[in-house]
Amino acid sequence: MRFGVNYTPSAGWFHSWLDFSPSAVAADMERIASLGVDHVRIFPLWPLVQPNRTLIRPSAIADIVQVVDIAASFGLDVNVDALQGHLSSFDFIPSWLESWHRRNIFVAPEVITSTATYVRELTSAVASRPNLLGVTLGNELNQFAHDPHPTPHRATEKQASAWLASMVGAVRAELGSTPAARAPLVTVAQYDAAWYDDAQPFGPEHAADYGDLTVTHSWVFNGAAQLHGPLGEGSARHAEYLMQLAAAWNRDANRLNWLQEVGAPTNVVPVKDAPEFLEKTIRHAADVQNNFGVTWWCSHDVSRKLADFPELEYDLGLFTNDGVLKPTGERFAELVHEFRNAKAGAGTPPRDALILEDVDAAGVPVADVRKSCAPGGRFSQAWLHHAASTGRGPQVVLRSKVADALLLAARGITEVHVVPAGIDRIELSIAHPATHH
Amino acid sequence: MRFGVNYTPSAGWFHSWLDFSPSAVAADMERIASLGVDHVRIFPLWPLVQPNRTLIRPSAIADIVQVVDIAASFGLDVNVDALQGHLSSFDFIPSWLESWHRRNIFVAPEVITSTATYVRELTSAVASRPNLLGVTLGNELNQFAHDPHPTPHRATEKQASAWLASMVGAVRAELGSTPAARAPLVTVAQYDAAWYDDAQPFGPEHAADYGDLTVTHSWVFNGAAQLHGPLGEGSARHAEYLMQLAAAWNRDANRLNWLQEVGAPTNVVPVKDAPEFLEKTIRHAADVQNNFGVTWWCSHDVSRKLADFPELEYDLGLFTNDGVLKPTGERFAELVHEFRNAKAGAGTPPRDALILEDVDAAGVPVADVRKSCAPGGRFSQAWLHHAASTGRGPQVVLRSKVADALLLAARGITEVHVVPAGIDRIELSIAHPATHH
Repeated sequence: MRFGVNYTPSAGWFHSWLDFSPSAVAADMERIASLGVDHVRIFPLWPLVQPNRTLIRPSAIADIVQVVDIAASFGLDVNVDALQGHLSSFDFIPSWLESWHRRNIFVAPEVITSTATYVRELTSAVASRPNLLGVTLGNELNQFAHDPHPTPHRATEKQASAWLASMVGAVRAELGSTPAARAPLVTVAQYDAAWYDDAQPFGPEHAADYGDLTVTHSWVFNGAAQLHGPLGEGSARHAEYLMQLAAAWNRDANRLNWLQEVGAPTNVVPVKDAPEFLEKTIRHAADVQNNFGVTWWCSHDVSRKLADFPELEYDLGLFTNDGVLKPTGERFAELVHEFRNAKAGAGTPPRDALILEDVDAAGVPVADVRKSCAPGGRFSQAWLHHAASTGRGPQVVLRSKVADALLLAARGITEVHVVPAGIDRIELSIAHPATHH
Repeated sequence: MRFGVNYTPSAGWFHSWLDFSPSAVAADMERIASLGVDHVRIFPLWPLVQPNRTLIRPSAIADIVQVVDIAASFGLDVNVDALQGHLSSFDFIPSWLESWHRRNIFVAPEVITSTATYVRELTSAVASRPNLLGVTLGNELNQFAHDPHPTPHRATEKQASAWLASMVGAVRAELGSTPAARAPLVTVAQYDAAWYDDAQPFGPEHAADYGDLTVTHSWVFNGAAQLHGPLGEGSARHAEYLMQLAAAWNRDANRLNWLQEVGAPTNVVPVKDAPEFLEKTIRHAADVQNNFGVTWWCSHDVSRKLADFPELEYDLGLFTNDGVLKPTGERFAELVHEFRNAKAGAGTPPRDALILEDVDAAGVPVADVRKSCAPGGRFSQAWLHHAASTGRGPQVVLRSKVADALLLAARGITEVHVVPAGIDRIELSIAHPATHH
């Protein structure tokens, strides 16, 4: 099981790409390496690398490669996200996709072609680096595809599939053919609407079918912490739950699951509770079969000198902005030390599974299946009840796959349960946060 | 009378700020200086200088200062536009004003404060340069304030006034108190909707009342060339007309008028006609009283390697993208040579003036006065008829000011004419271009 952090540069946040300083990156990486982690995830800003549709700046690519190399010098592997896109409430969309040039990111043919060119050139530049963990298409790009994004680039599920096929293909073409789930990986990162919002065109199948493993990002400001309290089971097990839920759509029982983002947002997790929240979260997540690893959000606090971030964003770092290890950082380092030698998926998978009714008795897809999975939803509640009663979150099996005895056997599932009667949906009214990650 | 060019970097267009090369700038400036011009107008990209609301990058400011100094080394004065904002169909708005952070540029108090801070810091950095011609708030920012901008930041006329007062005040505070119309100047640049579109909140009064002189940008793709042909009087006199029209709102008879942008757009002016269009335009503009100068758009063609520009944008340069002087450049240099020693406003002003009925007989403002001024409008047609009959475009006097005998005397107006009967509006149906400048 791998441990890493999402790298948020201490000086200038991601705007530091504009004032690229290898020594500043090195200072950050040195601190990150001191946590005992094996990797970082890094985030170029798309408009800076590709300011015109047909201009991919060599110097921007060179800076990214240098960050990969600096990380290597500290023994860190690197995952590069291509299309940012979105970071901590801020969108970075090139001017050739805005205003008079507004075109749908996921649909316009020349945009798809040019985006794929960027993804390919970026991948090509880092592909030979021995410490390349992989390339993620971009950070939670599915948020751009639907509400509540203020200016969505609406795509259908089919268009989402086509776009993912183009982009994953572009990365894979440059990475070469490697055994599944061996670095360098190509991965797809989505925010949790993929599993919780039936209207979101990028869905659980996309997470399961595209890229080399299934990626989840767990943020308890989505209602989980509001409903269950900062240290309640529904919060502390949220990452575990989301990983189990996501695994239900995997076609391959051995497909790995990467908890690529998880953090302790102070709007719902008080600072004093954050280390315990972190520890519970990681212990529960480590209990999930086929766990590739955990990448914490994030390395460094955002400087208070920078304006307009949602309040919680200033306090997500394992280090303060000036490099002091925080209590969460200490706890994280202890856990990394403890788990460092645990093998991915080494634990026995939970033998029991809860059936998610994705289709009805006639085999017709259920319209609001994702809603039932969201915090407060009937399925979500049932899973938590089951976890509380057994001490471990169950696996999730889709009704549409429950008859696949081979798959269930491969997953180590020997008992299946239906959602028991008497569990009701808890209605939540959470203002949609401006923040994804 | 001063001559200059709007500086469009030959390598990488304005994205070259991301790969700032003093020697590349010097090579461009050397060619520009060979035209005999005395100044350039330069365009920082706002999101690169102020990527976060409270982060104004010192290195970006330093690059701008260096461009001013490089220009000085070639004997060129420099006008710096602050808020881009918009250039050649592309918008550059910082991420802290987009999507989840969308706030009205002209109205939100903290945005106004932070924008003023940027304008002030930029001005402060260049204020001491002896070759500073001035600071323009930003390029045609009024386009953001209303339709047809795809995502307008709607402002009322009053809000526009308040915003201009804040920004002009910010620049002036750093430039210090200088005699009116002496460099360094603070100026306000608007696209022609200010005079032609009654719905545009930034209007003719703003052009006349804010900044040290009145600025006009003349683009005949606005209907003038479609209606009158590339070399027709309505095209060749469009800049002259717009300057005369803008002067009608000046409170000070001696206020200078700067034709800060004018170009030969090939969508309506064929390449073969462009030199003649350029010559006619400049000769007519030079015939306007109080003409501060003409700044041609632009120095260099946009490279064909860059995508998505409207077709006309690739061919507006006086030099090709690789630095070859074009026929328009040759003609421009000849005219600069001819006019170089003409003093600003040295010519006798036209003695006759056409009355623009901005108020009715009861003194009530006329609702569609600006529409009547646009190409094809009744006033516009009458002005052209008058110019054709006398060989020189008349001045324009507002009905609301026609009784101000002192003003008329100061303007040298001895005859006033009403729009004659029999002149009708010509309806034009011009698709609004994505391009302003």
